[in-house]
Amino acid sequence: MHYPYTATATLLALLLYLVVTMAVGRARVKYGIKAPAVTGNEQFERTYRVQMNTVEQMVFFLPALWLYAVLVNDIGAAVGGLIWVIGRAVYAAGYIADPTKRGTGMMISFLAQIGLFLGALFGVVRALLG
Amino acid sequence: MHYPYTATATLLALLLYLVVTMAVGRARVKYGIKAPAVTGNEQFERTYRVQMNTVEQMVFFLPALWLYAVLVNDIGAAVGGLIWVIGRAVYAAGYIADPTKRGTGMMISFLAQIGLFLGALFGVVRALLG
Amino acid sequence: MHYPYTATATLLALLLYLVVTMAVGRARVKYGIKAPAVTGNEQFERTYRVQMNTVEQMVFFLPALWLYAVLVNDIGAAVGGLIWVIGRAVYAAGYIADPTKRGTGMMISFLAQIGLFLGALFGVVRALLG
Repeated sequence: MHYPYTATATLLALLLYLVVTMAVGRARVKYGIKAPAVTGNEQFERTYRVQMNTVEQMVFFLPALWLYAVLVNDIGAAVGGLIWVIGRAVYAAGYIADPTKRGTGMMISFLAQIGLFLGALFGVVRALLG
Repeated sequence: MHYPYTATATLLALLLYLVVTMAVGRARVKYGIKAPAVTGNEQFERTYRVQMNTVEQMVFFLPALWLYAVLVNDIGAAVGGLIWVIGRAVYAAGYIADPTKRGTGMMISFLAQIGLFLGALFGVVRALLG
Repeated sequence: MHYPYTATATLLALLLYLVVTMAVGRARVKYGIKAPAVTGNEQFERTYRVQMNTVEQMVFFLPALWLYAVLVNDIGAAVGGLIWVIGRAVYAAGYIADPTKRGTGMMISFLAQIGLFLGALFGVVRALLG
């Protein structure tokens, strides 16, 4: 395995995602929202939106993370990945408490994603020219 | 290609996902739910929730599956992947029939995901220490 | 890096996704839809559905793209990926203007996905038999 640090960051991201996913299951029971409904209680909706937004970010984050790892280096990707996980945890805690407080965490993980994306872009241009 | 069995399991997962996705398109026509609406008919909502939940699980499943394949082995990942696909098929059939019957399939695929995750975690710890 | 063209196509897909994602953030402000709500204004809902549908397609597209790249070849995967990105851009523009006009772009990216999937399936069968 050539990318142990990126693999570690990926597992941390999956762990965070597991926590926000299981929170939705608990909120469904706690607030009595019966499937297939996903609305009807503000607190349930916050929990669900945290999961959905995390999904929406992961489909960008994971490919950018691994392209960075392969095209640039393992340790840099892992640092970006770790910042992303921290940002997402801050986002989730903020959103559950008050949706207007989701900005800080969102910005941290967004910047991590953009950094990974730009690094991967630099790496692929170098690979195409090299 | 060093991971032919994991690749096969991945293609089976994509095939299952294709089936649940196309079911949403058909349900949209059948129950007259015009885009961008995703609510308004219980049966449509069930079909749509099956797709969304499959998306929500895939973003965890696919990275865990491939980390397991690379860090542990191909055949074990493929077995976990096959169990996941079976669980998801059981889940989809149960949910469409009656949302309260979605538990069994959900549990099967959830356990497969957790098994792959824990195996990958073991693999990465071994790689970091080794 | 053995797959520079597929990596380039992936970065283009992420760029397209970034554009449709940021459009949702802008639409949230423009139409005054406060989190956690995702309904309440037709134009916001269109923008949000474009993002969600792109997520729904990406979880199929990215694995199919990379399995094709590894199992068949880099350049073919990249061509399929480029067609997918074009289809998604046409889809987004059509949907925002009028949801009934989303069919053309959807069909282009769907056919690209199916082509990548079938190519990868051929590749894996060849790998298992070879």
